[in-house]
Amino acid sequence: MGYRKVKDQESYDDLSQNDVESLSGRSLSSANATATGLSSADGAKGKSSWKLKSVVTLALTLLTSSQAILIVWSKRAGKYEYSVTTANFSVEALKCLLSLAALFRTWNHHGVTDDNRLTTSFDEVSVYPIPAILYMVKNLLQYYIFAYVDAPAYQILKNLNIISTGVLYRIILKKKLSEIQWAAFILLCAGCTTAQLNPSSDHVLQTPIQGWMLAIVMALLSGFAGVYTEAIIKKRPSRNINVQNFWLYIFGVIFNLVAICVQDYDAVMNKGFFHGYSFITVLMILNHALSGIAVSMVMKYADNIVKVYSTSVAMLLTAVVSVFLFYFHLSLAFFLGSTVVSVSVYLHSVGKLQPQK
Amino acid sequence: MGYRKVKDQESYDDLSQNDVESLSGRSLSSANATATGLSSADGAKGKSSWKLKSVVTLALTLLTSSQAILIVWSKRAGKYEYSVTTANFSVEALKCLLSLAALFRTWNHHGVTDDNRLTTSFDEVSVYPIPAILYMVKNLLQYYIFAYVDAPAYQILKNLNIISTGVLYRIILKKKLSEIQWAAFILLCAGCTTAQLNPSSDHVLQTPIQGWMLAIVMALLSGFAGVYTEAIIKKRPSRNINVQNFWLYIFGVIFNLVAICVQDYDAVMNKGFFHGYSFITVLMILNHALSGIAVSMVMKYADNIVKVYSTSVAMLLTAVVSVFLFYFHLSLAFFLGSTVVSVSVYLHSVGKLQPQK
Repeated sequence: MGYRKVKDQESYDDLSQNDVESLSGRSLSSANATATGLSSADGAKGKSSWKLKSVVTLALTLLTSSQAILIVWSKRAGKYEYSVTTANFSVEALKCLLSLAALFRTWNHHGVTDDNRLTTSFDEVSVYPIPAILYMVKNLLQYYIFAYVDAPAYQILKNLNIISTGVLYRIILKKKLSEIQWAAFILLCAGCTTAQLNPSSDHVLQTPIQGWMLAIVMALLSGFAGVYTEAIIKKRPSRNINVQNFWLYIFGVIFNLVAICVQDYDAVMNKGFFHGYSFITVLMILNHALSGIAVSMVMKYADNIVKVYSTSVAMLLTAVVSVFLFYFHLSLAFFLGSTVVSVSVYLHSVGKLQPQK
Repeated sequence: MGYRKVKDQESYDDLSQNDVESLSGRSLSSANATATGLSSADGAKGKSSWKLKSVVTLALTLLTSSQAILIVWSKRAGKYEYSVTTANFSVEALKCLLSLAALFRTWNHHGVTDDNRLTTSFDEVSVYPIPAILYMVKNLLQYYIFAYVDAPAYQILKNLNIISTGVLYRIILKKKLSEIQWAAFILLCAGCTTAQLNPSSDHVLQTPIQGWMLAIVMALLSGFAGVYTEAIIKKRPSRNINVQNFWLYIFGVIFNLVAICVQDYDAVMNKGFFHGYSFITVLMILNHALSGIAVSMVMKYADNIVKVYSTSVAMLLTAVVSVFLFYFHLSLAFFLGSTVVSVSVYLHSVGKLQPQK
């Protein structure tokens, strides 16, 4: 299996030993070397890695919040009859195109180097389909879990992702979190779940053992895919992120093309590829594409832990924004959960391991 | 006001600078000197202060848990027509008697010394009625707050006590908590509230401003009474705790005697003092008396922060025990709140300030 291989590869990449806020000189220089990225093509070279980290984390947080808001908006606006597979394909294709556009810009400004050339070796590219396959398996399991749990309970169980990401991050990437950061991580999971509590949440306690097993397997698959992506991207710190993204997304394009042929071939042939697309559909595709790129950027310049914090804070932001946009009602549980998540973010930053060796 | 006086007195008592787990040699010896207390009259002299702290904390936790269970039990067993004022009087009188009994034992074993003689000066005893008066004012306000909030919302608002105790502990006793311990304290409040959430908890968000003001004033009064008691008891570290308790409780006896005369004079005269008492009433009085003594012991050998943690953990223990005794149903919110409280206890102990000067 590819897992052990990544572990071995990772051992010579000490960039992975850097914590969120404690940066060694090496990661700084490597981040600058690859800072000619999509969102900051020109002026980023002089920026510190810390700034880059903050920008990509903020971008991910804002994109994830607006993603949830777009979903609510699209639901309010009525159901659109577009095919989900073509939308997924469009997202992956758009990500590829944006990565290529950023690459062209880099080539024009800095010329083609070993780090930013698109051509690749089998050794480099062979692991790139694995995250896409893991996510596909997880999405297939999603159909089975609903035999055991209802949708609100599934929302609650999805918070197991937080714990699985932390555990796999520790085991696979061999990165250490301090005791206080582990405590913060447990709090993040408890706080997010608390913020989502509603009167029917207690149903989740009646989940049968099969439901729990499936939820845990799905959390592990999702966590493993995230951690594996980080391992792939961080394996070559000086490699241009847009090249890495291109190879990551091209497999998404291929897999989704297969899905269209299997599931929606007739619909696409009869009604057209973009049948049923509305302005909001286009916005959602654009948002998903940018969010996907932001996730890759966070993997490159920060890590999975930052990603989990970012998306958790985004969940709270979404709720607060929804109060103003959709007159949502905030519960006491939401305030309590937000408090716990805020304390968790604080503890994660003060609890960082002191650099020692 | 007595407040500034205590602050001045407290300045020469560096025992208050000791944190829960970091004990200086001085507090150790003073704890041993006064360890001839009620619950450990003979063998305690050789015990370390840490053991004494653990024993009184455990006693408070168990007594507080069983207190809540007795209340549920008494409700299940039907309503008893005893007068609340006579029960309160009995509790205070029993505490006085138990303190005196412990004192007699000490006198027999060790003779009468300056530290364990019952006679006192006006200077020492003049501050003792203040906690009793503060609690009385708080109990009076309790009648007014129910004009603005219902009982479940009041249960939620009572968790403000945790924050007020922490803040007043810092301001009045000038004891320092580390940043992580402050974070832990916020988590304790959020966790306790989460554990108590039920479908009608959101009512508390509709509390009018007057209700919030009253709740905050009551929390401050309750916190101030606790912190003030600690200041009184800690002011004289070598003074026997049973002497201090006697003088603390005698004012409770007097105030409750006044309350009986004002409120229940006719009922007591016509039906008798112990009218309507059952076996469970006697158990509850015994439990309240022992809990009260345990609180004093915690104030002497530990502090208000330990008291708050102890009673919070007791609240969770009560719920777990109630599952077995009364077939209570534990909610998801309870599990989440318990997790947050557990992490808070852990953070409080790992986050202790390093001894430095």
